[in-house]
Amino acid sequence: MIIVLKKDVSPEEMRKLVADIESVGNIKANTIIGEQSNVIGLVGDTTRLNEDDIAANDIVESVKRVQEPYKMANRKFHPEDTVIQVPSANGSVTIGGGAFQIIAGPCSVESEEQITEIAKSVKKSGAKLLRGGAFKPRTSPYAFQGLHDEGIRLLLKAKKETGLPIVTEIMSAAHLPLFEDVDVIQVGARNMQNFELLKELGAVQKPILLKRGLANTLEELLMSAEYIMAAGNPNVILCERGIRTFETATRNTLDISAIPMLKKASHLPVIVDPSHACGIASMVEPMAKAAAAVRADGLIIEVHNNPQKALCDGKQSITPEAFDKLVKTIRPFAELNGKTL
Amino acid sequence: MIIVLKKDVSPEEMRKLVADIESVGNIKANTIIGEQSNVIGLVGDTTRLNEDDIAANDIVESVKRVQEPYKMANRKFHPEDTVIQVPSANGSVTIGGGAFQIIAGPCSVESEEQITEIAKSVKKSGAKLLRGGAFKPRTSPYAFQGLHDEGIRLLLKAKKETGLPIVTEIMSAAHLPLFEDVDVIQVGARNMQNFELLKELGAVQKPILLKRGLANTLEELLMSAEYIMAAGNPNVILCERGIRTFETATRNTLDISAIPMLKKASHLPVIVDPSHACGIASMVEPMAKAAAAVRADGLIIEVHNNPQKALCDGKQSITPEAFDKLVKTIRPFAELNGKTL
Amino acid sequence: MIIVLKKDVSPEEMRKLVADIESVGNIKANTIIGEQSNVIGLVGDTTRLNEDDIAANDIVESVKRVQEPYKMANRKFHPEDTVIQVPSANGSVTIGGGAFQIIAGPCSVESEEQITEIAKSVKKSGAKLLRGGAFKPRTSPYAFQGLHDEGIRLLLKAKKETGLPIVTEIMSAAHLPLFEDVDVIQVGARNMQNFELLKELGAVQKPILLKRGLANTLEELLMSAEYIMAAGNPNVILCERGIRTFETATRNTLDISAIPMLKKASHLPVIVDPSHACGIASMVEPMAKAAAAVRADGLIIEVHNNPQKALCDGKQSITPEAFDKLVKTIRPFAELNGKTL
Amino acid sequence: MIIVLKKDVSPEEMRKLVADIESVGNIKANTIIGEQSNVIGLVGDTTRLNEDDIAANDIVESVKRVQEPYKMANRKFHPEDTVIQVPSANGSVTIGGGAFQIIAGPCSVESEEQITEIAKSVKKSGAKLLRGGAFKPRTSPYAFQGLHDEGIRLLLKAKKETGLPIVTEIMSAAHLPLFEDVDVIQVGARNMQNFELLKELGAVQKPILLKRGLANTLEELLMSAEYIMAAGNPNVILCERGIRTFETATRNTLDISAIPMLKKASHLPVIVDPSHACGIASMVEPMAKAAAAVRADGLIIEVHNNPQKALCDGKQSITPEAFDKLVKTIRPFAELNGKTL
Repeated sequence: MIIVLKKDVSPEEMRKLVADIESVGNIKANTIIGEQSNVIGLVGDTTRLNEDDIAANDIVESVKRVQEPYKMANRKFHPEDTVIQVPSANGSVTIGGGAFQIIAGPCSVESEEQITEIAKSVKKSGAKLLRGGAFKPRTSPYAFQGLHDEGIRLLLKAKKETGLPIVTEIMSAAHLPLFEDVDVIQVGARNMQNFELLKELGAVQKPILLKRGLANTLEELLMSAEYIMAAGNPNVILCERGIRTFETATRNTLDISAIPMLKKASHLPVIVDPSHACGIASMVEPMAKAAAAVRADGLIIEVHNNPQKALCDGKQSITPEAFDKLVKTIRPFAELNGKTL
Repeated sequence: MIIVLKKDVSPEEMRKLVADIESVGNIKANTIIGEQSNVIGLVGDTTRLNEDDIAANDIVESVKRVQEPYKMANRKFHPEDTVIQVPSANGSVTIGGGAFQIIAGPCSVESEEQITEIAKSVKKSGAKLLRGGAFKPRTSPYAFQGLHDEGIRLLLKAKKETGLPIVTEIMSAAHLPLFEDVDVIQVGARNMQNFELLKELGAVQKPILLKRGLANTLEELLMSAEYIMAAGNPNVILCERGIRTFETATRNTLDISAIPMLKKASHLPVIVDPSHACGIASMVEPMAKAAAAVRADGLIIEVHNNPQKALCDGKQSITPEAFDKLVKTIRPFAELNGKTL
Repeated sequence: MIIVLKKDVSPEEMRKLVADIESVGNIKANTIIGEQSNVIGLVGDTTRLNEDDIAANDIVESVKRVQEPYKMANRKFHPEDTVIQVPSANGSVTIGGGAFQIIAGPCSVESEEQITEIAKSVKKSGAKLLRGGAFKPRTSPYAFQGLHDEGIRLLLKAKKETGLPIVTEIMSAAHLPLFEDVDVIQVGARNMQNFELLKELGAVQKPILLKRGLANTLEELLMSAEYIMAAGNPNVILCERGIRTFETATRNTLDISAIPMLKKASHLPVIVDPSHACGIASMVEPMAKAAAAVRADGLIIEVHNNPQKALCDGKQSITPEAFDKLVKTIRPFAELNGKTL
Repeated sequence: MIIVLKKDVSPEEMRKLVADIESVGNIKANTIIGEQSNVIGLVGDTTRLNEDDIAANDIVESVKRVQEPYKMANRKFHPEDTVIQVPSANGSVTIGGGAFQIIAGPCSVESEEQITEIAKSVKKSGAKLLRGGAFKPRTSPYAFQGLHDEGIRLLLKAKKETGLPIVTEIMSAAHLPLFEDVDVIQVGARNMQNFELLKELGAVQKPILLKRGLANTLEELLMSAEYIMAAGNPNVILCERGIRTFETATRNTLDISAIPMLKKASHLPVIVDPSHACGIASMVEPMAKAAAAVRADGLIIEVHNNPQKALCDGKQSITPEAFDKLVKTIRPFAELNGKTL
């Protein structure tokens, strides 16, 4: 961290600031006396320092962080890609490394028939994990909020039937007992900075699929991963799902540049959700191709099987037939990058 | 809700869609056969319908919601301003209506001496409620997270000493028992769409101070208020605290237009947090004036008393002296709008 | 400017970079050898250096600008408020300093009767300058683009009739001859970074009203002002008119914090356009109050007189009666800040 | 266009509004009397109507545009892809259709040696057009603004030497005579809504490469294309180059979803600028792959040949060697989509 001091700061004031900072521990301050301004360079573990707090000091002109504020998620301290093993009926499904995995399933679990039918279908097409919402975060309190424990029970039935590990969203740490047999726990975009939930998920050893918040920076996403990791769970899968911008033609703007940026900064696997980002079924395939082209580690895709029922499926879901075609289309893009789908 | 159908939709397809929609209950669909396109107009309670779900239908060209999706928070169904009573040592403090209230206190509760001293000072200057963080949402897991239950204990001491009701943030419904004697429970920006928490706060009868999320629309803020209200707690105070934009000179962009827009749409009181929005102490006073000028119902302001300690106070905190001057400066602006501070 | 070098940079590489930078002229580089990283601090005129260009160098870890990249618009080098004199029939109208001026008039000039009638009306209510569009920037090529030279001719008639100086927008330097008798030339938001136009306006001595672009930072606005000033015209009036965000309830988000931020950074007068920002007539008054509360130097407001004609007036225009009431409402807010309206 | 009227609008008011709208010409209004609200559906050419203007009417509740406001750029009225022919020494270079073209060259033209050397190098690697800035839009008036006419002269020399058609940016219609022998005229992001410039470029028959503004929607980009086309020039190439968001890790956020969205809405070719969007050289290759994966019609890429000179090249430029590798890497991605590079 580089601290630029204001002009005319007295040596005593500077010494006081240095002492305050060093009292945090494990940090050494190098003072540099310049002609126009003095600079303090900090060496050591600056993760416990907050730039804003230091900048609040009257004698400070500005502060620049040089080191990233995250450690466990940082590729600098862990150069190898993290590969996450999800136990499955036949061995385990790996996320990260050379694999390109597709997680597919309906927005919401609705019935045993629905979830089992989709599970069989997406498995046949090449999906290696099954998704389905049991707890649904909905903007409106009047909207369908999911089948809750019954939804999880139905997912487990589909898992038993197909052998596909299941991925489903948690909305409160109080529901954790229901997630005992869930294979991958998803944290939705709206809970990315629900720090109490993140801490509780750090105490679990299951893989956590952590979605980027709608207005969160990549650094903040990595800091949320750090919360889970610092609490003891290294199995974090990052997920880009679109950010809020002024554009209105798409629901959100899928930030494809986030994938290579995250890969550079971190060793954690990164997957992409092309369904929610745009909110338009016809956009799922092109954005899935883009994700494969930038070496994402996989996709999470909404597939519905109920086109004749008008009100239940979102604008962004694709049919099982479209999903089957999509997997075939995506495969060579992933393979060009040396990934196996 | 107005549903525009695609060209060449058959009468049968249209009838099917109408039947599907009416099956939700309490809705009547008026079909309008035009020359170029057919239109369905829905009358009744459309709050349970989701535009996206309807738009996902193959025969639908586009959907336009005419009615707001919130009811209990809606001024149309509740034209009078909601005035919230916060019980205090000497009668009660009102938020909303003709009052302009200032909530003040430190970012974090640090010690008995600190919180009591600030409480006395801000009370003398005109604050009617005391704020202070016991549970602190921090981007970094390595940053100070607050004194937790000890912090609440100290706030209660300061309340006993000064008679000021206290406002403090909750981060998990699991902590609710600790908030028994807290007067106003704050939901932070990052938890604005923590729907499980909102539902639990609907079961409480205390006033809830609900902050707008960093990237949430005004409609979404009102929908989150609706969650609390629909679960049984009508005492919601809305709070604008800045949104994320491309501008980097200020930490966030305080959306002053949000106050009159929210007042028009809803009967709930609206207060403004000028401290966090800009992240710059010198901006607190001008933005507080702007808030008073647009008829906000009050302010929530960070005041610290520890300028000589470099690391503990945020860039946005003002001193007790600056706070005292601020209250005097703001008062005539509030009074010009017929508000009493 | 502070340049942090990467680890293990050789003394020779460092010397080469220093020589390259100093060759720009008028800059002195102080090299600081630290334990972990070396830092170069630049003293002198760094306005000609581009951070990105320096950061592109292989041996550079990061670059931090300490000085602002603008000089003539910078309050540091010109501590006194700039007060701009606009010559008028009876002496001159001042913008900046202790004055709070209101510029009012229709979106577009439509007819002699229309512009003269509005001019008389807004003058009576307290406006000191008349606005009206002759060249209209329209998103659609099929929309009405203004009366062009005829529009300016009509504005001049209204000026003659009322004595009000006129403000109107220029869209191309090629039209400058038509602006001979225009008192204040407006640069619209979409042309804020039309650098060729800015340079040409630097050769004129008339006041330039420069609107902030929809997605431009405050620093970029000041850099555009610097273009005009560096080319020889010091008479720049800055105008905040709303920025693009994800919010859809208002057309744009009026950034009220921009006013005190600009005032701190620059000596130039700053006015506010509350009509275009929100795009809602009922929002003009509250946002005008907010502008007065933060010590803006004035307002530019759309007033129409043609409510019975459905297609010609924008959503954001207010009637002459509403304008008259607005001036009365705003005055005490401006006066509380020691401004005279 | 669907106009929803307020409750209790009298038949007379409605008739008046209908008459006003129909007076614009070529529009027919169908009035629909509902139980709760009346609706007017407009049929015909609504491109000359402005939603905001109609919404400003007192009796109107809301307005929804059903048809796009652009015609000539609209795929609905021109289903076939537009393929643009750029004449070159050996036949012509096509943009659009089955081709995937790469435009490459330095940020700024600096010397005959520099531009000729890069031109030869990028041609050898597979670029079919040469880019180079002669007029440079720079945020700062103190930054290097390009070699102007001399820069164009040097580009023409490089063209003569290599046979590559040249692409360069125009900043003012007054410079058009200098562009006589330029093959493709670029309109930069900051001039996307410089409508006077767009109109003048409509009078030229050369291909225009139109970059999306930093905060412009896709519809606005298409409306700017419509300006050029409506003025007589159908040869418009659209270019996505990143938009402004809250993210700070990348300079801008490259909106990859813009490419399939634009392709669906319009028949015009769409290319991608991965250099400026991220502002990071290492991001050029992954984002170029993403562009190829979503069926863009090509790329425009910055290549420099001067790594030893610290101050002249931008953070986003890649070396000729990196460019050569990039073309080889991109080719199979383009070919998977049936495109020829």
